[in-house]
Amino acid sequence: MIKMPFSYADRLISSKNADEKYLLNEVHHLSVDGFPLLVHYDLRLLKKNWNKADLLTRPNTLWRYHEVLPIKEERNIVSLGEGSTPLVPLSRLGERFSINLLMKDEGIIPTGSFKARGASVGVSKAKELGVRNIVLPTNGNAGAAWALYSARAGIHSYIIMPVDAPKITREEVEISGGNLYLVRGVISDAGKIAAQLISDYGFYDASTLKEPYRIEGKKTMIYEILEQLRWEVPDVILYPTGGGVGIIGIFKGLLELRELGWIKKIPRLVSVQAEGCAPIVGAWEKGQTESRFWDHSKTIAFGINVPKALGDFLVLDALYKTDGYALSVSDREITAAQREVAEFEGSFICPEGAAAFAAMKHLTKKKWIKEGETVVFLNTGLGIKYPESFVPQAPIIDLNEHLQIK
Amino acid sequence: MIKMPFSYADRLISSKNADEKYLLNEVHHLSVDGFPLLVHYDLRLLKKNWNKADLLTRPNTLWRYHEVLPIKEERNIVSLGEGSTPLVPLSRLGERFSINLLMKDEGIIPTGSFKARGASVGVSKAKELGVRNIVLPTNGNAGAAWALYSARAGIHSYIIMPVDAPKITREEVEISGGNLYLVRGVISDAGKIAAQLISDYGFYDASTLKEPYRIEGKKTMIYEILEQLRWEVPDVILYPTGGGVGIIGIFKGLLELRELGWIKKIPRLVSVQAEGCAPIVGAWEKGQTESRFWDHSKTIAFGINVPKALGDFLVLDALYKTDGYALSVSDREITAAQREVAEFEGSFICPEGAAAFAAMKHLTKKKWIKEGETVVFLNTGLGIKYPESFVPQAPIIDLNEHLQIK
Repeated sequence: MIKMPFSYADRLISSKNADEKYLLNEVHHLSVDGFPLLVHYDLRLLKKNWNKADLLTRPNTLWRYHEVLPIKEERNIVSLGEGSTPLVPLSRLGERFSINLLMKDEGIIPTGSFKARGASVGVSKAKELGVRNIVLPTNGNAGAAWALYSARAGIHSYIIMPVDAPKITREEVEISGGNLYLVRGVISDAGKIAAQLISDYGFYDASTLKEPYRIEGKKTMIYEILEQLRWEVPDVILYPTGGGVGIIGIFKGLLELRELGWIKKIPRLVSVQAEGCAPIVGAWEKGQTESRFWDHSKTIAFGINVPKALGDFLVLDALYKTDGYALSVSDREITAAQREVAEFEGSFICPEGAAAFAAMKHLTKKKWIKEGETVVFLNTGLGIKYPESFVPQAPIIDLNEHLQIK
Repeated sequence: MIKMPFSYADRLISSKNADEKYLLNEVHHLSVDGFPLLVHYDLRLLKKNWNKADLLTRPNTLWRYHEVLPIKEERNIVSLGEGSTPLVPLSRLGERFSINLLMKDEGIIPTGSFKARGASVGVSKAKELGVRNIVLPTNGNAGAAWALYSARAGIHSYIIMPVDAPKITREEVEISGGNLYLVRGVISDAGKIAAQLISDYGFYDASTLKEPYRIEGKKTMIYEILEQLRWEVPDVILYPTGGGVGIIGIFKGLLELRELGWIKKIPRLVSVQAEGCAPIVGAWEKGQTESRFWDHSKTIAFGINVPKALGDFLVLDALYKTDGYALSVSDREITAAQREVAEFEGSFICPEGAAAFAAMKHLTKKKWIKEGETVVFLNTGLGIKYPESFVPQAPIIDLNEHLQIK
């Protein structure tokens, strides 16, 4: 019997020029011209060797798709059981908007956010490359995930967060034994501190899109969505967009699956941002291929408070090529959407996920999303990771009191 | 083709007397003598119709075992994708104690705690029975889960919590649109308020073991553990014990699986409690079949702060019949265990799960757990649901500062 490769990754390529190649067994961050790198697979060979039925006996983690992930040796995998998150039908709300509405619930994953996917694949590859110390500027959840997965791998982590990042994510970094630093500023300021550590100490740069493997973890979301839908492609996918790695990964995964012959159609992809930080929306509305830095950005959806993403051109490319859309929603709409999904569907989603849900409402009203279409939105994490916004309403009852229901 | 039954449940029986029967299509709470009721299945028939291979194509939720769950009609299922939680190998820590250590991670589930299992099955059955209003006294997580699942089912929930229950669980109840009341006291005081609502308004009593279906949800933990271990039975299972529904369910599931012929051996079951609330341990040490109310109970592991469980005799029975053990650990050990699991294995577990891990250390030292044994402990929820205990340590960096690593 011929032993099949564990991974069909064969090289890194520049996201600006597929002919520009880099080796997979060396540490690489950006292309020589400063663009993100992408992992390339030998899909022609894989197409001959891989069948959908092979998935039946695979574990319920994102590693069930190991052929299209960049880890060469199975023993390097750093896993906490991430992936195979629920694709939850939201029938009551779907009916109200006359669509088939599904939520990919990325809260049901180690560390409680979809950042676990990037961390599991990214840290596994760092381990395979022999990395000892990683640095990461983060809005919170990515730092939490990378610190915990690094701890599991025995890698030291240095995590830099804005001082007003969600408190729970700080706690996750600290309990992992990671080295946490808070900076008075936004994520781009955290990036400056990170750059300094990288230059002073030679640590591994795990910043968004400055290591090529996080995208690969994120792309497994679309592999799962399609497997859960028995390879029936939905019409629309809505994604809350900060750094944009998820939507870049989803688009990359879709192209791979089409090349493998597992799907034919490509869904329309929608980038959702907050009104207080909407650089991608601004660029898309003008038909531009790059975004401009968004000054004084502010939103309660902290994970998508990214004033300028390194991969903005890749996000915009995905929107243009799929006949997609970009739009922003207000913080007020986000809060209302969180309550609506909890009250009608029983799920306490995060503000970023709620933004995607709120955007769906605009697009059905505009009839850009049509009656009867199948629509998937990404809830990227647990609502409970943001307890700061909570104002308790519940009455306190004394023991000798007789409770009356209104 | 003969249509197979969706569920093989055929009656309710008293937990004190299996000959005392109750109907499944009526609302029942306790037996006429005040004992918990158990769901009985026609396992003889099921044994003929069910094969392990049938599970291959089932969804990744606890409903993959619908034959041994009490819901008659599939359309009554209220699901958010709960179950199929990871069974995570803790190799680094296992090696240190010379055992094969695995953690069943019940944090990776909707609402972030294993209470989702009981809520999904309990609310589904309430829906099937036509219930409109449920009441639940709770230490927090069960209330959160029942409120959210009830919202999804369109059932009104009335949740009573001690005023110092974890804040995040309050938020989960409130966002679901559930009716939350806080009581100045412990869970038994919340129980008194609940009893009053039930008597005044005729609401459905969903208190621990006062509805028979929550156990059925919890028992799916052992079905999953064994399926994940390919039906190789572990030597020891450690369970943090408050109300004890989980361990009662695990023992019930083991007996069912033995009767089905899927397993032969039964593992030794261990009840873990906190030093500040250890009624089961007290009873077990004296060889008693019931526990005594634990006065002035107190522990940081809020979920196991239960001074007297209605099902204590069932828990003790499970310990005696499996050559099990009961022991308590201190709050200090719990906190240290949380940090140890995070630093070495990358998982931020809850205090209750950490108690089970800490107990494992005592039992390997005592040699009650032997070298090379396979040991599973239950982490019953996410560490991040308890952020109150967190004291941040991270330094704050100014933008013009040059960060020096020590």
